[in-house]
Amino acid sequence: MINAETIGSLGENESLKRTISRLNAADSAIVGPGDDCAVISAPDGRFVVTTDTLIEGHDFKLDWSTGFDLGWKSVASNIADVAAMGARPTALVVAVAAPKNTPISWLEAFADGLRSACENLAPGCGVVGGDLASAEQIMISVTAHGDLQGREPVLRSGAQVGDIVAVAGTLGRAACGLALLASANTDAINAYDDWVNVQRRPEPPIQAGIEAAEAGATAMLDISDGLARDAARIAKSSNVTIQINPAMLQGFEAVLELAAQAIESDPKQWVLAGGEDHSLLATFAPAATIPPSFKPIGTVLEPGLSPVLLGDQPVNELGWDSVRGA
Amino acid sequence: MINAETIGSLGENESLKRTISRLNAADSAIVGPGDDCAVISAPDGRFVVTTDTLIEGHDFKLDWSTGFDLGWKSVASNIADVAAMGARPTALVVAVAAPKNTPISWLEAFADGLRSACENLAPGCGVVGGDLASAEQIMISVTAHGDLQGREPVLRSGAQVGDIVAVAGTLGRAACGLALLASANTDAINAYDDWVNVQRRPEPPIQAGIEAAEAGATAMLDISDGLARDAARIAKSSNVTIQINPAMLQGFEAVLELAAQAIESDPKQWVLAGGEDHSLLATFAPAATIPPSFKPIGTVLEPGLSPVLLGDQPVNELGWDSVRGA
Repeated sequence: MINAETIGSLGENESLKRTISRLNAADSAIVGPGDDCAVISAPDGRFVVTTDTLIEGHDFKLDWSTGFDLGWKSVASNIADVAAMGARPTALVVAVAAPKNTPISWLEAFADGLRSACENLAPGCGVVGGDLASAEQIMISVTAHGDLQGREPVLRSGAQVGDIVAVAGTLGRAACGLALLASANTDAINAYDDWVNVQRRPEPPIQAGIEAAEAGATAMLDISDGLARDAARIAKSSNVTIQINPAMLQGFEAVLELAAQAIESDPKQWVLAGGEDHSLLATFAPAATIPPSFKPIGTVLEPGLSPVLLGDQPVNELGWDSVRGA
Repeated sequence: MINAETIGSLGENESLKRTISRLNAADSAIVGPGDDCAVISAPDGRFVVTTDTLIEGHDFKLDWSTGFDLGWKSVASNIADVAAMGARPTALVVAVAAPKNTPISWLEAFADGLRSACENLAPGCGVVGGDLASAEQIMISVTAHGDLQGREPVLRSGAQVGDIVAVAGTLGRAACGLALLASANTDAINAYDDWVNVQRRPEPPIQAGIEAAEAGATAMLDISDGLARDAARIAKSSNVTIQINPAMLQGFEAVLELAAQAIESDPKQWVLAGGEDHSLLATFAPAATIPPSFKPIGTVLEPGLSPVLLGDQPVNELGWDSVRGA
């Protein structure tokens, strides 16, 4: 009757014990989970830190994502922000709130997802602490840390006129996966399950962030809310215009074309405004050697009327607002 | 009509902008809020990190605590964990989820509480990043970081037989305050508002944690779930028995006696099992010079049948389980 066990029946201590035992150790942990704090090494005398939250019913549905998926995604979305600074992810702390009747098996699968994402996306990174509380809906809040390894952080504000704009990772696949799930078209979901899986378990190109920093990227961020919205963030922070070449998005659109036809959608919109691929958008000086993990998609221009242009057309700041939900 | 503005009507970016503008800068922030990550200095090549969550309806009621109170409390409860390692609090990241109809004035007051707690409890510490999401209930998740300043971290596992057990800060006052609020006895609440305010805005003795570490404390933790439960944590981690001398708790009980009479409660229970004072419990070798901020309350004995004794009586592990809620 192991499935009858819930986090409420087991209580905080026992639930945490079962969860922590499934996690991998972080290489950076001098003191791991179990004390008031973890102690983490920061060899170059600095660390980077970011936090992001997933809320049931707003950021995910339990019908569409397993505990494993959500553990994976909460790691992936946070370490993408670490990579976007040019840092190597080192250590995570994870706060989970869930209803008391949540099966412990859900929490164990969540822990397995945390571990698998660390091992696959950022080997050596691990969970060093956490908190478990009860609430009426599941809320997952992850804080991720990284090591700059002596490099300068790559900010959003450094893009220069004349720079090349490039992207590492996929565009529009997570949005395609979300549209497939929302369509409830089982045939299409099964046929294009690769894109559904990008939505459930994104694979941000972590190593590409370090490569970009080493190649002298002038600006970088994690595309979490869609290319248009996130490009506008670099444009505004750097006081420039980001001009995207529509021809250079065609490859991203082409792979989604059949899935789009199956559910009568527009792949262009997914590529331009779809969030949650957690790819990296960076700018490089014209003389830089752009790492092979990055594909050029545009150019940095003088600031103008619109922060982002698609060809010569202004682009609305479409994409995701995590409070408004649209 | 400024009160009509909600975080939903303003959206994530504008709500965050208004909030961040009210915060103090952290001395440790090389890069502050606004990029994918903050960059924080870690001068001795290590940092400590902890996370803790407050959930509406479980950990607080909006009827009893203002936004300011909750900002203060979420800082205080987390930096107490940092102090319990013997570290100086340096930087916080704060994730908030709240209903879309939450007034922006609530979030602004919350930010003021964050700032005030940092400035009063741990000058130089500040919020370096955050996240705002929408949810059906308010959830506040804070991750706190600290600097060991070259000291070894003080763990829960280092208590030795023969050590002195001592506490810095108050015991039972937050529980008294909670009982007063729950009594709905307005006269008593007004007469003993000092204890209600400890519940709303606890003042953990942050500097005492550093003093304990410098004095060679062998073990330490933050008393968040009650003396009995938290003493048992040191006892189990260190494989010892913590013997509390009931005579040494009388001073803590005496100050709560009148409030207890007013609502027909037992101050002994508050002192022994009441959480949320966020005081520090530490053990010191008999030869150590115990800092004046710590008051001896007991002795470390060989492990026995019960992790905690009150005089010669075993103490049940009363106190707070954050999942079960009791």
